[in-house]
Amino acid sequence: MTDEELERTELTRLRRAPERGRFDRKTLYEIIDSTPICHLGYVVDGRPAVIPTIHWRMGDRIYWHGSRLSRSLLGSQGSEVSLTVTQLDGLVLARSAFHHSANYRSVMIFGSPEQVAGDEEKTEALRGLVDGLFDDRWQTLREMSRKELNATTVLTMEITEASAKVRAGPPKDHVGDEGLPVWAGVIPIHSVTGAPEPCPHNGPDLTVPDHVRDFILGDPEQ
Amino acid sequence: MTDEELERTELTRLRRAPERGRFDRKTLYEIIDSTPICHLGYVVDGRPAVIPTIHWRMGDRIYWHGSRLSRSLLGSQGSEVSLTVTQLDGLVLARSAFHHSANYRSVMIFGSPEQVAGDEEKTEALRGLVDGLFDDRWQTLREMSRKELNATTVLTMEITEASAKVRAGPPKDHVGDEGLPVWAGVIPIHSVTGAPEPCPHNGPDLTVPDHVRDFILGDPEQ
Repeated sequence: MTDEELERTELTRLRRAPERGRFDRKTLYEIIDSTPICHLGYVVDGRPAVIPTIHWRMGDRIYWHGSRLSRSLLGSQGSEVSLTVTQLDGLVLARSAFHHSANYRSVMIFGSPEQVAGDEEKTEALRGLVDGLFDDRWQTLREMSRKELNATTVLTMEITEASAKVRAGPPKDHVGDEGLPVWAGVIPIHSVTGAPEPCPHNGPDLTVPDHVRDFILGDPEQ
Repeated sequence: MTDEELERTELTRLRRAPERGRFDRKTLYEIIDSTPICHLGYVVDGRPAVIPTIHWRMGDRIYWHGSRLSRSLLGSQGSEVSLTVTQLDGLVLARSAFHHSANYRSVMIFGSPEQVAGDEEKTEALRGLVDGLFDDRWQTLREMSRKELNATTVLTMEITEASAKVRAGPPKDHVGDEGLPVWAGVIPIHSVTGAPEPCPHNGPDLTVPDHVRDFILGDPEQ
């Protein structure tokens, strides 16, 4: 059931030099930007832990954040982590169990995170998170307090080492199986947004801002 | 921006004894079953790796599989892994940057996987994967060959240690911020399936089977 994936897998070690291979930076960044959620892996006492967290990208750097006291942030800082972003695009139904598969796009970034130090740098990074998702929202918000800024840790690493895995397209059956009377194909899967749910405390005169009304998941323009 | 998450986070160590706490087995299993994709974390040479993979559950056991030669499977076998299943349910927009958050459900399972040995046991496990997603599909497929069975490794662990994190509901703003003229609320996110895409090799007489036509992502009945 994984022949496909292996065949179609390509790994790219990113270099600062000219881009090469199937997965150039543009492709990797499209995958990274396609969803705000990633899975961060780190090692605690020799054991792996994997937590979901919100990530964002600014240029060639990846960012994530959390409470200053978060065990995962403390555990990952300075040591090596991997950060994986995955989009499941569909389920692939073949004529044999073995060739069933999934369509997906995934990027794994490796590195040792460093903390974003300095109030200005931290604020700019957090603005990148908010405005990256919701165009120009930051300026509409109540300013961050000193206490909030202190309580927030932002981690980052430059995207210098990463690998990507992508499977797309119809099932690839064993030669000779195509004629079997078994329905084969793909069930596509998409992430979609529903109608915004206003907070019950919103005042009656508040209109839905453009960055909410026009929000598109994974839209690089937002 | 993570105060919410911390406040609303509860960890449960599963016991074989009577269920307790907010996250009983039923809740955990609903999250585990809600999507076929998980993120598997393992340690290679002291470094964490996180790969997306298809998982499935049979009773109190979790399963995943891959090529016999897959580095991730070889690397994870016998040593400790963590397997995390996450559903992103929405983006939470508050009146301050700090209280922005995400609605999500996530389960992390810890353990040391063992290989499913024996042809019958392996076949039954793989049938659990296929029929778990697509009701009664297994019996319609071409039988697995000896070569395919040999090439497939199935790993499993009993679900004895796991933790869950869930955030749901509207933004929880700093006291005093509710009256600010900032739109707050939730943008819900759902995973949905599109119309099945038949393989170009399907014969003209093949009808779409019920398990494809009626497929619902995360439907425990399927």
